[in-house]
Amino acid sequence: MPVTGESIRLSRLFSEGKNAVIVAVDHGLYFGPLPGMLNLSEVIGGVSKADAILMAPGSPAHCEAVFSKRGAPALIVRLNWGSNYAAMWKYKHSHSVPILSAAEAVAQGADLVISSLSLKNPDEAEDAHNVEVFCACVAQAHALGIPMIGEVYPTGGDDFQPEDLQDEIFVGCRIIAELGADLVKTFYTGKRFNEICAATPVPVLALGAKKLPKESDALKLAAVSVEAGARGIVYGRNVIQSKDPSRLLDALNEVVKDFQAPDKIAAKYKLD
Amino acid sequence: MPVTGESIRLSRLFSEGKNAVIVAVDHGLYFGPLPGMLNLSEVIGGVSKADAILMAPGSPAHCEAVFSKRGAPALIVRLNWGSNYAAMWKYKHSHSVPILSAAEAVAQGADLVISSLSLKNPDEAEDAHNVEVFCACVAQAHALGIPMIGEVYPTGGDDFQPEDLQDEIFVGCRIIAELGADLVKTFYTGKRFNEICAATPVPVLALGAKKLPKESDALKLAAVSVEAGARGIVYGRNVIQSKDPSRLLDALNEVVKDFQAPDKIAAKYKLD
Amino acid sequence: MPVTGESIRLSRLFSEGKNAVIVAVDHGLYFGPLPGMLNLSEVIGGVSKADAILMAPGSPAHCEAVFSKRGAPALIVRLNWGSNYAAMWKYKHSHSVPILSAAEAVAQGADLVISSLSLKNPDEAEDAHNVEVFCACVAQAHALGIPMIGEVYPTGGDDFQPEDLQDEIFVGCRIIAELGADLVKTFYTGKRFNEICAATPVPVLALGAKKLPKESDALKLAAVSVEAGARGIVYGRNVIQSKDPSRLLDALNEVVKDFQAPDKIAAKYKLD
Amino acid sequence: MPVTGESIRLSRLFSEGKNAVIVAVDHGLYFGPLPGMLNLSEVIGGVSKADAILMAPGSPAHCEAVFSKRGAPALIVRLNWGSNYAAMWKYKHSHSVPILSAAEAVAQGADLVISSLSLKNPDEAEDAHNVEVFCACVAQAHALGIPMIGEVYPTGGDDFQPEDLQDEIFVGCRIIAELGADLVKTFYTGKRFNEICAATPVPVLALGAKKLPKESDALKLAAVSVEAGARGIVYGRNVIQSKDPSRLLDALNEVVKDFQAPDKIAAKYKLD
Amino acid sequence: MPVTGESIRLSRLFSEGKNAVIVAVDHGLYFGPLPGMLNLSEVIGGVSKADAILMAPGSPAHCEAVFSKRGAPALIVRLNWGSNYAAMWKYKHSHSVPILSAAEAVAQGADLVISSLSLKNPDEAEDAHNVEVFCACVAQAHALGIPMIGEVYPTGGDDFQPEDLQDEIFVGCRIIAELGADLVKTFYTGKRFNEICAATPVPVLALGAKKLPKESDALKLAAVSVEAGARGIVYGRNVIQSKDPSRLLDALNEVVKDFQAPDKIAAKYKLD
Repeated sequence: MPVTGESIRLSRLFSEGKNAVIVAVDHGLYFGPLPGMLNLSEVIGGVSKADAILMAPGSPAHCEAVFSKRGAPALIVRLNWGSNYAAMWKYKHSHSVPILSAAEAVAQGADLVISSLSLKNPDEAEDAHNVEVFCACVAQAHALGIPMIGEVYPTGGDDFQPEDLQDEIFVGCRIIAELGADLVKTFYTGKRFNEICAATPVPVLALGAKKLPKESDALKLAAVSVEAGARGIVYGRNVIQSKDPSRLLDALNEVVKDFQAPDKIAAKYKLD
Repeated sequence: MPVTGESIRLSRLFSEGKNAVIVAVDHGLYFGPLPGMLNLSEVIGGVSKADAILMAPGSPAHCEAVFSKRGAPALIVRLNWGSNYAAMWKYKHSHSVPILSAAEAVAQGADLVISSLSLKNPDEAEDAHNVEVFCACVAQAHALGIPMIGEVYPTGGDDFQPEDLQDEIFVGCRIIAELGADLVKTFYTGKRFNEICAATPVPVLALGAKKLPKESDALKLAAVSVEAGARGIVYGRNVIQSKDPSRLLDALNEVVKDFQAPDKIAAKYKLD
Repeated sequence: MPVTGESIRLSRLFSEGKNAVIVAVDHGLYFGPLPGMLNLSEVIGGVSKADAILMAPGSPAHCEAVFSKRGAPALIVRLNWGSNYAAMWKYKHSHSVPILSAAEAVAQGADLVISSLSLKNPDEAEDAHNVEVFCACVAQAHALGIPMIGEVYPTGGDDFQPEDLQDEIFVGCRIIAELGADLVKTFYTGKRFNEICAATPVPVLALGAKKLPKESDALKLAAVSVEAGARGIVYGRNVIQSKDPSRLLDALNEVVKDFQAPDKIAAKYKLD
Repeated sequence: MPVTGESIRLSRLFSEGKNAVIVAVDHGLYFGPLPGMLNLSEVIGGVSKADAILMAPGSPAHCEAVFSKRGAPALIVRLNWGSNYAAMWKYKHSHSVPILSAAEAVAQGADLVISSLSLKNPDEAEDAHNVEVFCACVAQAHALGIPMIGEVYPTGGDDFQPEDLQDEIFVGCRIIAELGADLVKTFYTGKRFNEICAATPVPVLALGAKKLPKESDALKLAAVSVEAGARGIVYGRNVIQSKDPSRLLDALNEVVKDFQAPDKIAAKYKLD
Repeated sequence: MPVTGESIRLSRLFSEGKNAVIVAVDHGLYFGPLPGMLNLSEVIGGVSKADAILMAPGSPAHCEAVFSKRGAPALIVRLNWGSNYAAMWKYKHSHSVPILSAAEAVAQGADLVISSLSLKNPDEAEDAHNVEVFCACVAQAHALGIPMIGEVYPTGGDDFQPEDLQDEIFVGCRIIAELGADLVKTFYTGKRFNEICAATPVPVLALGAKKLPKESDALKLAAVSVEAGARGIVYGRNVIQSKDPSRLLDALNEVVKDFQAPDKIAAKYKLD
């Protein structure tokens, strides 16, 4: 059984069997430099307490330091670009294209890779094309023992409250897992999110999406996500745009890994 | 005759020359988690009496146990995704794309593979593209001695009663066989299904499609299929959503392999 | 974790976790047609109670029937030829060459493959070359999820009593496992064979070598092998040249899988 | 500057800029199961305090656990086999062959890879062949951003005291670095070892070779190695055959990383 | 750290750490022969004081001389063609296609390559396609250690004053850098150009666009560009259509590399 890389790398993400706290810093691919993310290497330097950091293909070269010690966060590199993420431009389709091969990601230091799949496009051919792009990424990653995170991001998803996406995401998570994803990243959909986690045969990671008004809200979202069965969270703006990302990560780690009550932890870390 | 793998694997499916009962559990690729299929590994565990189980590329990793003993069901893995299967979304075309290579399927334990072909699309170029995708799958499978099941699924098929599809399927089965399929999976089309079986130079497997109201209906459908010349059936929801899939498989095996009368068998197994 | 094929195929060999009884019928590659093996397809037809049958690349085409039903023995195909096996000609080296790729073996229906490694040749370069040939086979097999049996066959091994080879085999089994073998096939070396099984990190299969005078001897050899920790036996002449191979296999199955006492079993099956 | 993987992975080995303590457990490739290494997974479990563990291609599959948490030791996998290591058999040449590709090593979870180069063989063509094998490994590793350790192991090295090899190693380390090694592993050669470290443009790692009589000797060897400029040590038997490998690693870490006096540390850890 | 080619070539462009003055002469790809550029080799001969010259794939063959001595300007070759550059024809989309591989560019003598990315097209699919084309160029260039200049050229950009493009370019530069560009070439956008330079993790080069009325204007544009943080300028018509390109380059070099005041330098070189 020679392909041990995949299980080794997955186990490092969920170290000691605990849930994972992941920070996403690939927004620049779609939004350019968001507030709080102007200087990429500074930003990354502040989130080293995360279990993993998700970056665009061009970014690791500017942020080596944070990955360069034993026990450093895992590096997740994105392999595709989809027009649906260009929410800023009100895009309504989701044309997905490959932007990096899994081998190139490994050459940059990637421990895991991610690719998204958006279905229910205005044109069926887009769905089929997106499936093909996703599966090509899966094949490359699996050949190198690199776990593949499949991101389920319904086309037009930014126009909806995640709660309204329950059905899409319930279906999408199963589709992406049956296509070969080793993990799924998707929206927290509210009270019925547990059904999604239960029906998805691989670990589900809940994303944070837009910046929440208060940091205690971010803790609460993390808490309900893992209580529903998520194996971790993937936060971007909610961590990066925090006044003190490192402290917030300490708090998130307690909520996500040790199932501590978010209120208690918010008080402990003096988060608003 | 060096490519003996193909005939060995085919003969194992039609063990002792008898017809085959196959369970399909790849619905998640298009429908997400259907009722009765929420927990993939549980579901698969209950259908080990089938001659083969058809799965999506990402699924075998979650269901190793059922395949892991001598005499276990054969594993059939799907190599393509076609938008026509997304019936839930009322898709009207059928853009087919490759999602797994035959070599990757073998690496997952596949004994056979399947790919579909949908013709008569709104745009002729789609037909041609789908033919190309299908034949690439055939070439890969044949190089490895893996039998290729060609699925004939007319575009828009879900909007019709299978009976209305007789002509499409009569033509489609011959096309797919002449393109290189070793077996054909398609709809039972009613009274003239025997003409399809007779004119198709490879074994035909009848699919069950939507859940029938009663389990005895499923037995009857199986009976008329094999009486018409089908070499087996491929049932999904009709087995998986049964109250007792294992018992229904016992019944189906008697009908399909031993040509027992479905009424008698329904009574024997106390099926409604 | 997509490469499930290897564990599925290994589990089928050791079905229900029990030890395996394998029949080797690849002697023709070195000895031509031995007594009792003149008609290849007849011989193979008589050993279908084995868990697996080991054959040369050209043989499966002539023996399809035995592999062509559900629950048939697994097919193991040999990927290399080594001059050391040509004991009939008193060969003293062991030049190993590839004779079939793993993909070609799969095309013939192989469930597992085998390649040997013979070290301590008169010329060190032969050792190195043999290691290279073996590892190329491993890489091919692993890419297709096909378990690789490594055969440890010391150069000049036929001039020795296996007991005299304890040290060579103790070393050789570990070498071949660290090079990537998923199973090891080698000589039973006598009282210290348990040390070999304990120090080899993969399952060890004991070979039968020369025809033993009595069938009860073959049972005893099997018994001491599995008591020492072997996970199965690979018998050739001892089964094939038996008066009743099928009956002997019944007896071997009881000894090897259920640890029945060989004397009792010899009596039960009326073996001399 | 996209190939950041190499510097990230190197920096993880020399975490926080400190020297590295590496444990080699690939002896089985040449010696079979040495005392203290009979059970591979047990042995590996005891050395998790090392910065990295060097293994043969077939071994990671049996020792996943030790690599499966955040901050686990790096996994170094060997890509070549050379007959010169078969010291047990008094081999006098060094025929080197590839046994695993860098991509396969990555698929197993490798963070770094190693390949050796032995020159001054009885036949010049062997030297040239070995250079070719080494450089092919370098090219594969560099394409994937995986640091390549070049092992300088003079042919016949086991017949000499390392001190007698000063000139060979002084030359060999520069050759292997100029051929593309990112790190060099070689013998400590005594008083003039500092000249080797100074003249080698990449970090030098000193190997421990044979088991030293006392554990305090192992500490002293480590101390003089890093004082001479080595960036770390690679110990096999000296750690594995220790009565308490974990305690010895604690002691080695203090000597190698913090330049503590070996006498003081031997006393602190009560090593003989 | 084997891919040093990229940093060596980048450092040569920014020789002694100073900013770069680049001349673009690839207008023919879109405009045909502009005034002042009728004779390609003559034109190029006059701009050898530039740090680099940007050309179309077919051009280096006609201008070898200027690149053919030690210390000659670097050769930058364009890898894509985009319909948005065809401003002469009032094109409104930006369909990007590859026109040369990075390997072919190297074969022509290229030291760097350039490819553009235009987003916010009338059809999202064009955006996605353009991203794919750009990333394929990046992958090729990086595999060869060739720095990749990403040109951010908003679709319809020629209809706007660069100042009106601030937001597009602010976003676009970050996108192209996160996709893997090693340098960015884009419009100077006026007073807030410094924000672009600060938020782009790679060096930004300001382009000159249309011919400015006076040469002192060109100096002033260069001055404000580098003061805002640009690491250089890429001028085409402003240099080529100058009465004395060589003298203007002397002046630009003083402004761009040594931050001399443009007024002073205009006076020194007697530029209008």
